[in-house]
Amino acid sequence: MSTSAFGIVRRNIKRADKAAVQKLSRYGVATVHEAQGRLGLMKTFMRPIYTGAKACGTAVTVLMHPGDNWMLHVAAEQIQPGDIVIAACTADNEDGFFGELLATSFRARGAVGLVIDGGVRDVMEISAMEFPVFSRAISAKGTVKSTLGSVNVPVVCAGASVEPGDVVVADQDGIVVVPAAIAAQVADAAEAREANEADKRKRLAAGELGLDMYKMRDALAKAGLKYVD
Amino acid sequence: MSTSAFGIVRRNIKRADKAAVQKLSRYGVATVHEAQGRLGLMKTFMRPIYTGAKACGTAVTVLMHPGDNWMLHVAAEQIQPGDIVIAACTADNEDGFFGELLATSFRARGAVGLVIDGGVRDVMEISAMEFPVFSRAISAKGTVKSTLGSVNVPVVCAGASVEPGDVVVADQDGIVVVPAAIAAQVADAAEAREANEADKRKRLAAGELGLDMYKMRDALAKAGLKYVD
Amino acid sequence: MSTSAFGIVRRNIKRADKAAVQKLSRYGVATVHEAQGRLGLMKTFMRPIYTGAKACGTAVTVLMHPGDNWMLHVAAEQIQPGDIVIAACTADNEDGFFGELLATSFRARGAVGLVIDGGVRDVMEISAMEFPVFSRAISAKGTVKSTLGSVNVPVVCAGASVEPGDVVVADQDGIVVVPAAIAAQVADAAEAREANEADKRKRLAAGELGLDMYKMRDALAKAGLKYVD
Amino acid sequence: MSTSAFGIVRRNIKRADKAAVQKLSRYGVATVHEAQGRLGLMKTFMRPIYTGAKACGTAVTVLMHPGDNWMLHVAAEQIQPGDIVIAACTADNEDGFFGELLATSFRARGAVGLVIDGGVRDVMEISAMEFPVFSRAISAKGTVKSTLGSVNVPVVCAGASVEPGDVVVADQDGIVVVPAAIAAQVADAAEAREANEADKRKRLAAGELGLDMYKMRDALAKAGLKYVD
Amino acid sequence: MSTSAFGIVRRNIKRADKAAVQKLSRYGVATVHEAQGRLGLMKTFMRPIYTGAKACGTAVTVLMHPGDNWMLHVAAEQIQPGDIVIAACTADNEDGFFGELLATSFRARGAVGLVIDGGVRDVMEISAMEFPVFSRAISAKGTVKSTLGSVNVPVVCAGASVEPGDVVVADQDGIVVVPAAIAAQVADAAEAREANEADKRKRLAAGELGLDMYKMRDALAKAGLKYVD
Amino acid sequence: MSTSAFGIVRRNIKRADKAAVQKLSRYGVATVHEAQGRLGLMKTFMRPIYTGAKACGTAVTVLMHPGDNWMLHVAAEQIQPGDIVIAACTADNEDGFFGELLATSFRARGAVGLVIDGGVRDVMEISAMEFPVFSRAISAKGTVKSTLGSVNVPVVCAGASVEPGDVVVADQDGIVVVPAAIAAQVADAAEAREANEADKRKRLAAGELGLDMYKMRDALAKAGLKYVD
Repeated sequence: MSTSAFGIVRRNIKRADKAAVQKLSRYGVATVHEAQGRLGLMKTFMRPIYTGAKACGTAVTVLMHPGDNWMLHVAAEQIQPGDIVIAACTADNEDGFFGELLATSFRARGAVGLVIDGGVRDVMEISAMEFPVFSRAISAKGTVKSTLGSVNVPVVCAGASVEPGDVVVADQDGIVVVPAAIAAQVADAAEAREANEADKRKRLAAGELGLDMYKMRDALAKAGLKYVD
Repeated sequence: MSTSAFGIVRRNIKRADKAAVQKLSRYGVATVHEAQGRLGLMKTFMRPIYTGAKACGTAVTVLMHPGDNWMLHVAAEQIQPGDIVIAACTADNEDGFFGELLATSFRARGAVGLVIDGGVRDVMEISAMEFPVFSRAISAKGTVKSTLGSVNVPVVCAGASVEPGDVVVADQDGIVVVPAAIAAQVADAAEAREANEADKRKRLAAGELGLDMYKMRDALAKAGLKYVD
Repeated sequence: MSTSAFGIVRRNIKRADKAAVQKLSRYGVATVHEAQGRLGLMKTFMRPIYTGAKACGTAVTVLMHPGDNWMLHVAAEQIQPGDIVIAACTADNEDGFFGELLATSFRARGAVGLVIDGGVRDVMEISAMEFPVFSRAISAKGTVKSTLGSVNVPVVCAGASVEPGDVVVADQDGIVVVPAAIAAQVADAAEAREANEADKRKRLAAGELGLDMYKMRDALAKAGLKYVD
Repeated sequence: MSTSAFGIVRRNIKRADKAAVQKLSRYGVATVHEAQGRLGLMKTFMRPIYTGAKACGTAVTVLMHPGDNWMLHVAAEQIQPGDIVIAACTADNEDGFFGELLATSFRARGAVGLVIDGGVRDVMEISAMEFPVFSRAISAKGTVKSTLGSVNVPVVCAGASVEPGDVVVADQDGIVVVPAAIAAQVADAAEAREANEADKRKRLAAGELGLDMYKMRDALAKAGLKYVD
Repeated sequence: MSTSAFGIVRRNIKRADKAAVQKLSRYGVATVHEAQGRLGLMKTFMRPIYTGAKACGTAVTVLMHPGDNWMLHVAAEQIQPGDIVIAACTADNEDGFFGELLATSFRARGAVGLVIDGGVRDVMEISAMEFPVFSRAISAKGTVKSTLGSVNVPVVCAGASVEPGDVVVADQDGIVVVPAAIAAQVADAAEAREANEADKRKRLAAGELGLDMYKMRDALAKAGLKYVD
Repeated sequence: MSTSAFGIVRRNIKRADKAAVQKLSRYGVATVHEAQGRLGLMKTFMRPIYTGAKACGTAVTVLMHPGDNWMLHVAAEQIQPGDIVIAACTADNEDGFFGELLATSFRARGAVGLVIDGGVRDVMEISAMEFPVFSRAISAKGTVKSTLGSVNVPVVCAGASVEPGDVVVADQDGIVVVPAAIAAQVADAAEAREANEADKRKRLAAGELGLDMYKMRDALAKAGLKYVD
């Protein structure tokens, strides 16, 4: 029992529908998160390593141990074009698991980005490559390659549950996980939501109040809001 | 789409086998975590509200919103004797979601404890009741009852994935989640592991070194360890 | 302008009504905070240095600089029996501003406790004295006495606004500030609230659900809660 | 008593003198903070969402609950040209209370910026608009609109006390609150201070030591400083 | 170059003079820290795992990697009666590096305690043994044994520099490191300091003010302190 | 004893060999840290105040007290061209110890940068000057000049031990300290390491897997890695 939990690489995973992924890639994380009913968001300590980083792809998941990036090398082989690597760690750790060489390798394999609940290094080089990386920390500290983790198993990354093949969307506002099974639905809901915003933006820009546009005054009064001078 | 994610209470959940739960309750969290291959541990910021608190039960899960404990009241009805309530929140929040009255209610329904990724209050009273509570924080701040969450849906609580019916073991060392499907196996592995420790303890207490008992010297030498004067 | 903000000791402050203070001292922080409409709570990082510490008194406020406890000595002279010292700092700092000697002095002057947004030391000795101290941290590090702060000016301590003479109640659940002007009202509200709880406790202990006792089922259904099997 | 604390909107507030606000807007936060005697600074966890953000205005204050941004919509109506919205929360919470639509609305009403002890989203869009926002966090997570807070009541925001109408200055160095009553004085002191710096800068750039320019050598020797080889 | 930094065990270290260690063991950390001129204190996040834990011994140092406790086993062999093990880690990590079995072994070898900038587990059992442990965290998570660190090299542990053989004193107030070369001097200074406190305590308990006892009034007046009514 | 620890300025320090410093300045922190056997890295909370900041120089060390920057002025006189100032503090403190005027002075004296375990202010001005500063925080809060620290004594800064004259390299990935005695060796090792990377980068960019390039497959299989479908 005690050794079976790590050391597994799943090669055949069911990736979310490509059309849904492409559609989701058009929307921001805030929109997708709303469209999905406000579920699946990672913690706010995850940040892009450069301003403007944005990525949307199908998850290749990695479970690593603190201070050990062996499984990122194993994961590279499992990457298919359009994938985003989602790396979780069995304990909070800010070591630099990932740097320019792995970024070069991941990109060569077709990866569209990396989300890692750990640290990364070579951030100037990776930023210059415009390879989108979202991490818990930046650290120059290298890692060993000595203990097995797993690739393409379900993981909890930065507070969100991720299955291999799920869609992950990441931008300056955060990172959201969309289960593969509902990717198309969520993409449609995102589209509907976005369509709805242009008109609101225009009305608000013209000075109309949200109080009126969203018809909040009655509910506020009912809740007991009092205006005083 | 955008409202379907919350507002669900699942009434019939499959709880882990009672015998396995009972067996697991004999072991500490460190032992169970090892027995399960080092998976399923919650984050270290979760702490018992009193020294010596310990609990082992089947999970009734709750998904709450920051500052809103409405779903804890809904969850109370779903508690069966032997359950432990596992409360997750959609964002980090330390409000006092739970106090003496809810503890009284939960205990009356048969709950053996609470694990909450949020704050609790009335800690002196709850400690005096010896109702085991493990939380992210202690806070006197009360919460509202206005937004729907869910009960008995899968949640991520303090970094660990929990399905309704899973076994959760909590003590001074932390909190571990054992999936219902493997609870019996993990309980057996924990038993085997514990049996193994008494002899080790005796030998170490007699002054034998772990270096010898675990036969580490060769591996250390091979890895290049150098003794200098 | 630039030096006038510090270096002031106000000797005559208006303390809250003694009867109100005494009445408030009977209730826990959670109750008082509710009674006051959920305002005035300090941050959750403030913790008692020993289990069971509890204090209720009228505030003598202190504004200190990081690493400098000079003003605590100045404050000692302003303490009257029944006062609680509330020490704020111009920046987050965990130095040990307060130890056994100052605790001895404060107690000799009649202080009933200390709330300090900083560190304290000699915690075993102060605990043995049963002098209630609530702090941000514990630190052996001593402080200098070289820069003027102020005594009995309005301060923000651990996120709560405190005026000299306000009532401060502190226990294991946290720390709440009650403005002197409304102390009697809040005390009455706390009393009413407490009276109300005994009956609820009894009904919940008998197995009645909060859902029924608080009549939540209609509101939940209206909000859209769905029970599934 | 227990419901009166929230649910208030004050419509007529006394804003600081316009000339003083304009004068203060010329100086950086570090200068204004010094000019005010080193009081009124918010905590360092508050950061601009884009490099170069700077704002100076009169405070419209908001008190919100965790996960609930209803009061920001209520506040929009109270904004007058030149105001800066200061949003505090009753508990630490990083949800995305504010996004592009509210930014559009606030700007349309004449707001010069937002300071929020919470999270914001749509940061790329808001940065592109160059609407200055200073926040505790960035989060894609939306908020509900269900519980009353207040508008234009005194608040503690990120550790600083703010009254409606006070001047708030924010830039890359932090955020400082200047009480309306002393805004003109502080503006004058800031001007005097700034005038004084040009000469110092020139002398230091020429290689003169602060030790000499500030005449510190005597005080250092008196304090016991020892030079060794 | 790149592999020489780890993998060293120094067997012969010069331990601080036994008499000085014994003398230092009589004083609290706050006193020793003052006696040493306020140097050598570890960070405040280091806490005892049970109330009342206290230890004073000569340092056997360990440098570990995140998630790897191999070197603690190596260190056990180097322990001599009266030693305290000081374990540092190359990166912040809260894994449970140390548990009951190692505590049993360390005690059997004569260790008087453990200070570890990492996590520990089996805290109830170790507390029952009354083996003093001071740590950054408590975690049930076990560690691997695969990468070499070092034993008895200079380390930085929780922000303090420690050489093998230095005296380390730990209690509820914190942890202080006294270099072996000055242990006797610091012990004498601690003794002198302590002698001095009894009289002060008595005078303060009698109501005398620190302002008078320490003759602070002139300095305060000179600094500009103003008393107002 | 109790006053000797502070108040020392060492004037003649042995700086690392200039050629080694120059050579080290060509490499990134990640490379230098690897070349040194993964020792000497500061904590990850230290960040550059502007994107692209990079510095390499010989350390002039400063030991300050919280809220007091007097010693930075003392340090200015000890700066020689090519030095980098390394400022440590006796307790965690985020005050703005350093601003534009000191940056002007440090640069005039020949300093190539500042690493400070504390806060800084005037970050827009210092960024415009392109004076590289790496700090724990940004804060507008000024500091006093009243308590002696030391200059050019050994310090622990952000978790790393620094001796005056050591080489410190800082960039976007972090900050590493190279002891003066081994600076040339580490520089050579860095050069060798870098030479080795160009070829690897090319092969990875061409799609070769790290698994093959680093010949990891055997070790992974031996460790028990299992591929499943």
